[in-house]
Amino acid sequence: MERLPLERKVLSENDRLAAGLRARFAEHGILCLNLVSAPGSGKTSLLERTLESLAPTERVAVLTGDIQTENDAKRLARYGFPVRQITNGGTCHLDGRMIERGLEGWDLAAIELLLIENVGNLVCPSSYDLGEAAKVVVMSVTEGEDKPLKYPSIFFKSKLMVLNKLDLLPYVPFDVAAAEHNARQVHPEIEIVRTSCQTRVGLEDWLAWLRRGMSQRVAVQV
Amino acid sequence: MERLPLERKVLSENDRLAAGLRARFAEHGILCLNLVSAPGSGKTSLLERTLESLAPTERVAVLTGDIQTENDAKRLARYGFPVRQITNGGTCHLDGRMIERGLEGWDLAAIELLLIENVGNLVCPSSYDLGEAAKVVVMSVTEGEDKPLKYPSIFFKSKLMVLNKLDLLPYVPFDVAAAEHNARQVHPEIEIVRTSCQTRVGLEDWLAWLRRGMSQRVAVQV
Repeated sequence: MERLPLERKVLSENDRLAAGLRARFAEHGILCLNLVSAPGSGKTSLLERTLESLAPTERVAVLTGDIQTENDAKRLARYGFPVRQITNGGTCHLDGRMIERGLEGWDLAAIELLLIENVGNLVCPSSYDLGEAAKVVVMSVTEGEDKPLKYPSIFFKSKLMVLNKLDLLPYVPFDVAAAEHNARQVHPEIEIVRTSCQTRVGLEDWLAWLRRGMSQRVAVQV
Repeated sequence: MERLPLERKVLSENDRLAAGLRARFAEHGILCLNLVSAPGSGKTSLLERTLESLAPTERVAVLTGDIQTENDAKRLARYGFPVRQITNGGTCHLDGRMIERGLEGWDLAAIELLLIENVGNLVCPSSYDLGEAAKVVVMSVTEGEDKPLKYPSIFFKSKLMVLNKLDLLPYVPFDVAAAEHNARQVHPEIEIVRTSCQTRVGLEDWLAWLRRGMSQRVAVQV
């Protein structure tokens, strides 16, 4: 609470950077998505399944954020698309400047879909606009149905909730309907897909959502 | 990064408050533990199993932090011990002032063990001393073995790692030895217990660790 005044200044500086990024993404017809979740909800696995489902001709790139390690970039680079790790050394979120730097040297004209994997954190990333077209919140069935109520900001700001690790449902006390009800209490218009990166259930729904986003983007550009 | 100067000021103010809390805990012979984890790692379930294992005569109290909802306090209050929810309205961690306020009106002379459940976040809580004797990091087997490497600060600062949700091991690709190796790479002296709040495996180890902490505390007082 004590840091509100400076936080406001940092956020308005970030908003300026994010507006610049958004303009660059629009100029190049890039759909940018910002994936946010708690640590271990399966963002990287979802991106792995996504990249392996795409034809090598697709114009996709990934920026993946972590405090330490290049592990996620290594996991994601195997699929042949441009992937870059942002290790921010201790910050609890990605911000606009980190994205600007992450994009340095990349030919934006060659990218149509930019997937940003944020630092694993359900709180702080919700305050930082990265110039994305939409935030996507990933939540796993191991986490408890009340997470949307406990961390409302990120569910309110996300266009889509991916309810992941569906394969674990038989082994955890988790009520899917209650979780989705809670998400809609916070954000009535939130879209929801249910996935498992192990059994691949629901991945087609996620990919269809991505394709709709891509086609709407092109429509906007034309 | 931009907020480092103010952050330093906020943290030194917090250190002052934490030193005051630590002095009060010492004065009253209270063992205070600060439980930190990602959202959904099972901190509240671990506290439920802990409280139900204790005799009603034990002098235990719980402060449980969340951004929104009183859900956790409701879950924990059933066991008959004093429990208070701290809802901080949007902050990504608990700080010393929130603990001071949380304790208001409680008779500290009647408490021997104070369990603080932090906001679900592996990053920010590691920077905020709450006057605790030790931080305890809870990690679930659904989260991936590399979490200690990706979020090193909290593993470095924790005296104990509770590796939780052991019952899910047959259903997730998780290597316990690798996770523990990673935790020890970051913090060679970290103690580790493995638990399941569903099957109750390992709870005796956790309770024994708590009892050792209690007895050492008494020895220090005498």
